[in-house]
Amino acid sequence: MMAQPAIALGLPLRLLAEAEGVSAAQVIPDQLVGDYQDLATLRRATAGCAAVTFDHEHVPTEHLHALEADGVAVRPGPDALVYAQDKGLMRERLGQLGVPCPRNAIVASVAEVEEFGFPCVLKITRGGYDGKGVWVVRSAADAVEPFEVAARSAHPDGTRILAEELVDFRRELSAIVARSPSGQAAAYPVVQTTQLDGICHEVIAPAPDLSEELAGQAQRLALRIAGELGVTGILAVELFETTGGEILVNELAMRPHNTGHWTQDGAVTSQFENHLRAVMDLPLGSPAPRARWSVMVNILGGPAKPGTAAAAPLWDGYPHAFARDPRLRVHLYGKELRPGRKVGHVNTYGEDLDDCLERARHAAAWFRGDLGNESE
Amino acid sequence: MMAQPAIALGLPLRLLAEAEGVSAAQVIPDQLVGDYQDLATLRRATAGCAAVTFDHEHVPTEHLHALEADGVAVRPGPDALVYAQDKGLMRERLGQLGVPCPRNAIVASVAEVEEFGFPCVLKITRGGYDGKGVWVVRSAADAVEPFEVAARSAHPDGTRILAEELVDFRRELSAIVARSPSGQAAAYPVVQTTQLDGICHEVIAPAPDLSEELAGQAQRLALRIAGELGVTGILAVELFETTGGEILVNELAMRPHNTGHWTQDGAVTSQFENHLRAVMDLPLGSPAPRARWSVMVNILGGPAKPGTAAAAPLWDGYPHAFARDPRLRVHLYGKELRPGRKVGHVNTYGEDLDDCLERARHAAAWFRGDLGNESE
Repeated sequence: MMAQPAIALGLPLRLLAEAEGVSAAQVIPDQLVGDYQDLATLRRATAGCAAVTFDHEHVPTEHLHALEADGVAVRPGPDALVYAQDKGLMRERLGQLGVPCPRNAIVASVAEVEEFGFPCVLKITRGGYDGKGVWVVRSAADAVEPFEVAARSAHPDGTRILAEELVDFRRELSAIVARSPSGQAAAYPVVQTTQLDGICHEVIAPAPDLSEELAGQAQRLALRIAGELGVTGILAVELFETTGGEILVNELAMRPHNTGHWTQDGAVTSQFENHLRAVMDLPLGSPAPRARWSVMVNILGGPAKPGTAAAAPLWDGYPHAFARDPRLRVHLYGKELRPGRKVGHVNTYGEDLDDCLERARHAAAWFRGDLGNESE
Repeated sequence: MMAQPAIALGLPLRLLAEAEGVSAAQVIPDQLVGDYQDLATLRRATAGCAAVTFDHEHVPTEHLHALEADGVAVRPGPDALVYAQDKGLMRERLGQLGVPCPRNAIVASVAEVEEFGFPCVLKITRGGYDGKGVWVVRSAADAVEPFEVAARSAHPDGTRILAEELVDFRRELSAIVARSPSGQAAAYPVVQTTQLDGICHEVIAPAPDLSEELAGQAQRLALRIAGELGVTGILAVELFETTGGEILVNELAMRPHNTGHWTQDGAVTSQFENHLRAVMDLPLGSPAPRARWSVMVNILGGPAKPGTAAAAPLWDGYPHAFARDPRLRVHLYGKELRPGRKVGHVNTYGEDLDDCLERARHAAAWFRGDLGNESE
């Protein structure tokens, strides 16, 4: 999705794709297929680039240090990115900064988890995403599997287990900011996010009924974290709003984030454009919303249905979805539908939140196939 | 610019590029370089495509007929496109339809031009664009050159000379509609366009102080022409608003048009997305404006200046333009600046027309280099 604003800005992209035909490879001509864990490949891919950035956090920190030593402008740099790569280091650093977080501790054994207390959340510190590598544990027996997964992971930078209190939250929020190497920063409106099976499912911008005070606090927190960690590009701070009316940091991501996809149609400058502007150290675009409300709903693959052509392109769903809602904005990723896989999202915006929600939910369900056998 | 919505829609594009590295070739991976006047090349390029469309009108009509005979979905089809390719046929057909046009006649000699009357406008019927192939003639001597150019052009479908009255117009307007093979159509707001040396320079959407009656008349006219000619995709109808308060058709284009570039940031669905939807026979997106006013100003290359690095990328102008106006929308085409060449455009939108105009004009002048030696 960075390719779209790159076209408008006239910024030529070079892609290191992990495999032929992946989403980005379908739309970026200047590409190289290779392993992002291999330093020689990274060096070949980044040679001559004005800036290097990422659409995931999995490039080994040590390789990013090596690229920086070569003189490559890695943005975000490894000293910042490591806090998005390693949840253990993230918690430690945020703790030092006095940022409100769930109670947490690195645990080395099931006995230490018992000492931390049940129920709690266990997370592998490296390599997890979209609910993978996260377990809610209520007993010693539940805590066995995470240690087995961590032992198997053999991550080059080491995988540990982080225990966190199970937060009694009212809802989840996300505060997204863009920050450039010069230190300019822009804060998007704080949004409400809803997860489904650990995957971001729905986003409402701005978060309904969020007090100005709490919204401002969340934005200032995100700006402060971006500054203290030296983030360049987009920083997404996923937050819990507790039943007590406080905010706690859940996760950090340093790239355009699912909770910011609404900005493609709902903000003056999308998170993808501002990420590019930030990593190129260009003045940032306005993060202001263009409508009273914006809603994003992910299109997730549902279970295969009897009689469904597995390979039917998603845009077979267009005639109904588009005819029903001429204002619907659709964003597909060039992926085949598989159960639980994010294959796209829809955006709606307008004056009426219920209307935006209804339109976006209907369209996403339609593409998922949930409504395929119903008449309307 | 069609590549951007194609990414969002998940529609894979295949490009026939006339040369390596042209604008579209920079951003579409699946490409083939070849001559669009060669039928074998066209057949190779279009094999297996669900629909074939254009970003210019210069593919020979006879080849498009051959592709259609092969079963290729050519959109717009040759029977429609010919009226955008040949101004003589366009005038004849619009005359049959009773569409208001400037007085016109095909002229075979300077003597016939004298008979038509001076001053008048002479146009080659095929191959002209952006003011090329158009002459305002006030005497028999002025009329010699057009006939020489037509004689040299050797266009496979024949180039003639069309004489048109020099219209005493108040301003120029453009009415853009999208039409699908199923006959669904959507009309964008009628805009005011300003030409500079025969090239579209500035567009204001909607046209200021245009009566609802005249605006409706222009939209209905464009819809009627699209229907009567069987256009699929975008049809741009360039109009004169005469000092007498009437509208006359100046030109037709059957592709996303410069007078519709404002829709990228100013409309719910851009002309580029609706062109793709139309040629794929998908329901069209809403053409409604998203702001009270939208302004587009083209970035044209200015004369080279002493001390200017000729090859400086245009985005060297970003720091100032972006820092001055965080709401500015920039669209560059990946072309080097050359005098008079369109290399991009800027869009602004908002509640205040003067503010939109000032911001867009300043930015376009800045990229052009006109303000490069001034302090601000």
